Amino acid sequence: MTILGEMLIGARAVKGTSAPIQAINPATNEKLEPVFGGGTQADVDAAVKLAWQAFDSFRETSPEVRASFLEACADEILALGDELVQRAMAETGLPQARIEGERGRTMNQLRLFASVVRSGNYLDVRIDPAMPERQPLPRNDLRLRMIPLGPVAVFGASNFPLAFSVAGGDTASALAAGCPVVVKAHSAHPGTSELVGRAIQSAVAKCQLPEGVFSLLFGSGREVGSELVKHPLIKAVGFTGSRAGGTALMELAANRPEPIPVYAEMSSINPVFLMPEALKARGDAIAKGFVGSLTMGAGQFCTNPGLVIAQSGAELDAFLATAATELSKVATQTMLTPGIFSAYCSGVDQLKGNASVREVAAGQGSDAPNQCQAGLYVTSAEAFIADESLCDEIFGSTSLVIECKSVEEFARVAEHLEGQLTATLQLDEADYAATAALLPVLERKAGRILCNGFPTGVEVCHAMVHGGPFPATSDSRTTSVGSAAINRFLRPVCYQDLPQALLPDALKDGNPLAIRRLVDGQDQR
Amino acid sequence: MTILGEMLIGARAVKGTSAPIQAINPATNEKLEPVFGGGTQADVDAAVKLAWQAFDSFRETSPEVRASFLEACADEILALGDELVQRAMAETGLPQARIEGERGRTMNQLRLFASVVRSGNYLDVRIDPAMPERQPLPRNDLRLRMIPLGPVAVFGASNFPLAFSVAGGDTASALAAGCPVVVKAHSAHPGTSELVGRAIQSAVAKCQLPEGVFSLLFGSGREVGSELVKHPLIKAVGFTGSRAGGTALMELAANRPEPIPVYAEMSSINPVFLMPEALKARGDAIAKGFVGSLTMGAGQFCTNPGLVIAQSGAELDAFLATAATELSKVATQTMLTPGIFSAYCSGVDQLKGNASVREVAAGQGSDAPNQCQAGLYVTSAEAFIADESLCDEIFGSTSLVIECKSVEEFARVAEHLEGQLTATLQLDEADYAATAALLPVLERKAGRILCNGFPTGVEVCHAMVHGGPFPATSDSRTTSVGSAAINRFLRPVCYQDLPQALLPDALKDGNPLAIRRLVDGQDQR
Repeated sequence: MTILGEMLIGARAVKGTSAPIQAINPATNEKLEPVFGGGTQADVDAAVKLAWQAFDSFRETSPEVRASFLEACADEILALGDELVQRAMAETGLPQARIEGERGRTMNQLRLFASVVRSGNYLDVRIDPAMPERQPLPRNDLRLRMIPLGPVAVFGASNFPLAFSVAGGDTASALAAGCPVVVKAHSAHPGTSELVGRAIQSAVAKCQLPEGVFSLLFGSGREVGSELVKHPLIKAVGFTGSRAGGTALMELAANRPEPIPVYAEMSSINPVFLMPEALKARGDAIAKGFVGSLTMGAGQFCTNPGLVIAQSGAELDAFLATAATELSKVATQTMLTPGIFSAYCSGVDQLKGNASVREVAAGQGSDAPNQCQAGLYVTSAEAFIADESLCDEIFGSTSLVIECKSVEEFARVAEHLEGQLTATLQLDEADYAATAALLPVLERKAGRILCNGFPTGVEVCHAMVHGGPFPATSDSRTTSVGSAAINRFLRPVCYQDLPQALLPDALKDGNPLAIRRLVDGQDQR
Repeated sequence: MTILGEMLIGARAVKGTSAPIQAINPATNEKLEPVFGGGTQADVDAAVKLAWQAFDSFRETSPEVRASFLEACADEILALGDELVQRAMAETGLPQARIEGERGRTMNQLRLFASVVRSGNYLDVRIDPAMPERQPLPRNDLRLRMIPLGPVAVFGASNFPLAFSVAGGDTASALAAGCPVVVKAHSAHPGTSELVGRAIQSAVAKCQLPEGVFSLLFGSGREVGSELVKHPLIKAVGFTGSRAGGTALMELAANRPEPIPVYAEMSSINPVFLMPEALKARGDAIAKGFVGSLTMGAGQFCTNPGLVIAQSGAELDAFLATAATELSKVATQTMLTPGIFSAYCSGVDQLKGNASVREVAAGQGSDAPNQCQAGLYVTSAEAFIADESLCDEIFGSTSLVIECKSVEEFARVAEHLEGQLTATLQLDEADYAATAALLPVLERKAGRILCNGFPTGVEVCHAMVHGGPFPATSDSRTTSVGSAAINRFLRPVCYQDLPQALLPDALKDGNPLAIRRLVDGQDQR
């Protein structure tokens, strides 16, 4: 397959006529061929209208058809072979093992959603049979199922060119729900996006689905992105990116004549609490694990541990000494884009310039372009609570250690935090009592609470929550990773006294789909 | 119990010092004693802070404690006896049978949520056990449960002084979820509100729950209501009322530093489609049933059938003739408030003044205060589609019949509609094909689709959806009636590798709560 710099509008490939986009190899700052044409308002309209035309038939495809389609997407992505891996590496500066791992994750994610579609649990079927003899009034026959919201706009993320991009979690869960998807590709990896987009386009054709099920547009967030979110036939939005970008989409969506849900995963500094006994017993090991998590992938993860909370004293000093030694061995890593590199440098400069913050360690340096030099800083709990700017996310391998006077102060620091994707606890059995006091605060602040690990690494499974209170996400009621992500794109419809012939299969007598159903409040299958 | 005109802030009763509020008997326009003092910003803050203080302990009460509390609320409301019935009648103009029926519905609703809490299904527990040997990477132990959002602001509705008010569906579902509730009472029935509020306050005390679990405030929507929605410790809002009121709350909530979900149930005209064969076979019976639904409770229901769609011709003429005869026998009924009566008259006047609309029937008239005179009007599909104002809800016993040239035109009319709570089909077997073509449109437009009945009457059960796309509600993903209403007040939290001692009971090994759990993707109990 060759990358042609074309958008995919249903079954067509179209060269955009708006402002051109060209990828940059961040390791060299060299431009990568070809030039991509940005989309226009007319392209947005064409893609969304095709999605709308596809919606009613796509949403009523059988579970088997939709599951097979998701699996076909996975197969077509794998069939792109090494071209995809090489292009993604060139566009992102990420190493081969990471890209190949991410490709596996992307395919597993599509297959997980295929299994979710087949299970039918997401339909949340409820049946309350008629009670014609009930006094004082009879009860009607009432049956509920979930149906998809409509065409979904998905914004590719920069930091996962496969798993959170064109065929990432938002796209997979929306398609699984029965929503056609229009992707606005991230301009940092347009070639990767086109390749994956063509794989999905091919899966749509092979599965004989209506072409509007999937489209891929290029262009700027301000133009193509805004037009997408404002389009009256778009019914939900998936986004992973910056807080400024996410809140801008939330505002656009809230101000539409018909407001729509926006699922924006935005900003998190992922506090790590070092409980005193754990710190005492194994501070060295924790320091080594922490530096590994902090510097993985140049820290370009939503769940990067940007904050460490610990009690001051000899144990913390030892922890910091080990962390400093470990960090000093870490070579620079290429960041995803010059823009991300520049934002990282600004964030670090701001931290360095803060009088209440001191630098305790730095990774190795480099003169090559867009290199992330890791860093570790310390401040006091008092200073942290007094200065809102210290809560800002610095996207990259930099973390801030908060020195507390006592373990009781941990809860004050936690209460001060905004919403988070994760909160991590390093703890031993002797820390249980102190942890139990802290847990209620962490539950209110974070979508995932983890013990004796580090927050990087987000399993794609049923129990995962990659979400959290604002500003971690725009909607704390949801997750963007794991099978529960499908719930974002569904709404309930109740059918009262419909004849069997007109009921959808999920609700028919005899349970032809063999799915879990709540009948009169009891599970039946 | 005596009505003292007091607000309930936790365990205290407080006479408000802001603008006074006094109920009016709409049947006579006489003022009812006592005078209620409106709340201030300080009262809002006091109530919300108590709610916040109660939150962490209330949300971790056992299912049995919370279920018993909901049942105690029901018992305490019943124990108010005839005083509650008489006061509600005086404040609303509604007849005794209706108020007693609504009281039963309110208690059943509280008891349904008690059963929901005991079943534990709403916790959506998912467990993905650790896989330490998995290659290339081990899997952590991951466990998900839903937790409540936080304190909820509930706005009482005017048209159900019990079932959608102080102890109505929003309050019951929020308390069931584990959210403390602060109610802003509707100023039309403050005495009813105080009585029911005192019943809940008493249940809180008897169940030895923290006082902040429930508070009741009086005051205007613009002052007390806005302050509530803007308060940083309020985490969700439940509202039933006008489109203007609901969208104002949505805007307030979206513009908070931390946006929060608003569940506003607002505006619906509830189309009724008369399929040709059903109209031919039993137009007379349908006309009688329709007039009964239209005029029940002076049409003051969210699901009142405000629109009828039918094919023009002799069958429709016969339907209209029967409906006119039936309607002419209907006596006026007292509306809930002078404001609602005045809005109804304006809406009817606007319809009468529309050149493309003709009046075909009217109910009886009356010179008594605030009397709703029923009315039936006709226009063409063309005129309806050309004039947005014809889609506006007229809250009361008035309906508009849309004459279509063919059954195919039904879909065009349906596509033109905004989001609805309900869509009704009168159909016979010979109408199945035409109905099947219309159903996908109705699914996209409405939360509940019903056959051969009328939309008034909303069963409180598991399969009910009282919701729908904007502007029927602010959030089509939810329902405000039925057990699924609890989902509005929950968010997921994932626990990774937490020791058993620190896990909540819902997630512990051995399933101590004996609830449904999805283990590795399979249901287990």
